[in-house]
Amino acid sequence: MANLLYEGKAKRLFSTDQDGILRVAYKDDATALNGERKESFASKGRLNNEITSRIFSYLRDAGIKSHFVEQLSDTEQLVQAVEIIPLEVVVRNVIAGSLAKRLGVPEGTPTSRPIVEFYYKEDALDDPFINDAHVLYLEAATEDEIAILKQAALDVNVALCELFAKMNITLIDFKLEFGRDQDGKILLADEISPDTCRLWDRDTNAKLDKDVFRRNIGNLTAVYEEVLKRLKEVV
Amino acid sequence: MANLLYEGKAKRLFSTDQDGILRVAYKDDATALNGERKESFASKGRLNNEITSRIFSYLRDAGIKSHFVEQLSDTEQLVQAVEIIPLEVVVRNVIAGSLAKRLGVPEGTPTSRPIVEFYYKEDALDDPFINDAHVLYLEAATEDEIAILKQAALDVNVALCELFAKMNITLIDFKLEFGRDQDGKILLADEISPDTCRLWDRDTNAKLDKDVFRRNIGNLTAVYEEVLKRLKEVV
Ligand SMILES: Nc1ncnc2c1ncn2[C@@H]1O[C@H](COP(=O)(O)OP(=O)(O)OP(=O)(O)O)[C@@H](O)[C@H]1O
Ligand SMILES: Nc1ncnc2c1ncn2[C@@H]1O[C@H](COP(=O)(O)OP(=O)(O)OP(=O)(O)O)[C@@H](O)[C@H]1O
Ligand SMILES: [Mg+2]
Ligand SMILES: [Mg+2]
Repeated sequence: MANLLYEGKAKRLFSTDQDGILRVAYKDDATALNGERKESFASKGRLNNEITSRIFSYLRDAGIKSHFVEQLSDTEQLVQAVEIIPLEVVVRNVIAGSLAKRLGVPEGTPTSRPIVEFYYKEDALDDPFINDAHVLYLEAATEDEIAILKQAALDVNVALCELFAKMNITLIDFKLEFGRDQDGKILLADEISPDTCRLWDRDTNAKLDKDVFRRNIGNLTAVYEEVLKRLKEVV
Repeated sequence: MANLLYEGKAKRLFSTDQDGILRVAYKDDATALNGERKESFASKGRLNNEITSRIFSYLRDAGIKSHFVEQLSDTEQLVQAVEIIPLEVVVRNVIAGSLAKRLGVPEGTPTSRPIVEFYYKEDALDDPFINDAHVLYLEAATEDEIAILKQAALDVNVALCELFAKMNITLIDFKLEFGRDQDGKILLADEISPDTCRLWDRDTNAKLDKDVFRRNIGNLTAVYEEVLKRLKEVV
């Protein structure tokens, strides 16, 4: 029996008959402005599932521990159930989006070393940007876990930068989620896809990610297809 | 000869004939919303100068190194010139103001340990909240300096909490500025006054700080007089 455990904006989580294993089904919906704007794109679920599955396999080979078990079908994968840490962990190699506004720096300015940020996963508050002291106050993570999260995020960044470079793509920034397994060990979870990364073509700076939807500047499906095509050429 | 070096919203800085020593003259202006709202209050300059001078003397006795040299007159003091670090260092013992909104926590919720935050001192950006990685990116302070700033802010907090407790006041939160002296040593600078602290009467929770102006809920001069009166009783 497969029970729907959670329906989010981009995915549905189902129980499976294996203890501690979940089935994730990727949806065709794209949302922006914290869900205020919503549209459906045929194939988006398949594309994000294919892309995320390949990236998590690649990260496993690079030694990064994650919830990923295996791809199950076009739109589904099996993952280890974890207790999600209520933080969005953002890594930035190039300044864009909200940080460009915050710091008054033009979009596209590279950083000399990656910037890690925490956002509190709380839709009602619009996922506010917070600092380490706030993480501790909220008991979202302990001091040791904060250090582990930052290092894991930087490790993922090194592996992903290498992968995307081979695809002629600059990894501008991305959002990760982590969870605790039954032993409290921290695992990378959720997804890594053009929904959660800013990806710019190295030659043209063309945006190959959800910004084409957020900013209404292109065809989401075509762009995600292009990312999957390039990904298949390298892994 | 005394040249005006800088005119801010609350103070004017003048050179003196002593090398490396500045004269600070406190103004009667109160501003809110990053200067958008402005009003003058007779005696405000005197009150903030008296309060800040007494607090910096008290902190000196508590072992905290600062720019403060001595009070010169009703509205003036002498300070050591420093290179101001472009950060507002905020310490919070009780959640209020922007953090209450950010975390969705009611104003007045105590924290189990003080929260330190950095804001980038840049009026054009409205002094945005930033994290340690942003401080490094902006080269506002080095990694070592960040650690020194946080510890100094917490040390000031311990001393100030003790002082205000004797005045039957809860120190909710406050903003500090620090600078580098000629040897690069970090000194506490700027002011500590009801303009830069949230102070609540312990019995009534009445606000004894600039929030009476920001929120239009009382007489600024009367409230600052009350703080000075209580301060004079204890130092
Ligand atoms: N291995 C896992 N175990 C448990 N939950 C997970 C796992 N991986 C991801 N999740 C959670 O499953 C949900 C995925 O759904 P989706 O991405 O659609 O959510 P969302 O609409 O983005 O909302 P949320 O704000 O909760 O992330 C997220 O809440 C995510 O944190
Ligand atoms: N010891 C010092 N040496 C040099 N500058 C100082 C010193 N102490 C404080 N300052 C600076 O002097 C100015 C004080 O003026 P005031 O408080 O009126 O400024 P402000 O309007 O708040 O503007 P700002 O955004 O620059 O703080 C501030 O810029 C402060 O950083
Ligand atoms: Mg999600
Ligand atoms: Mg000031």
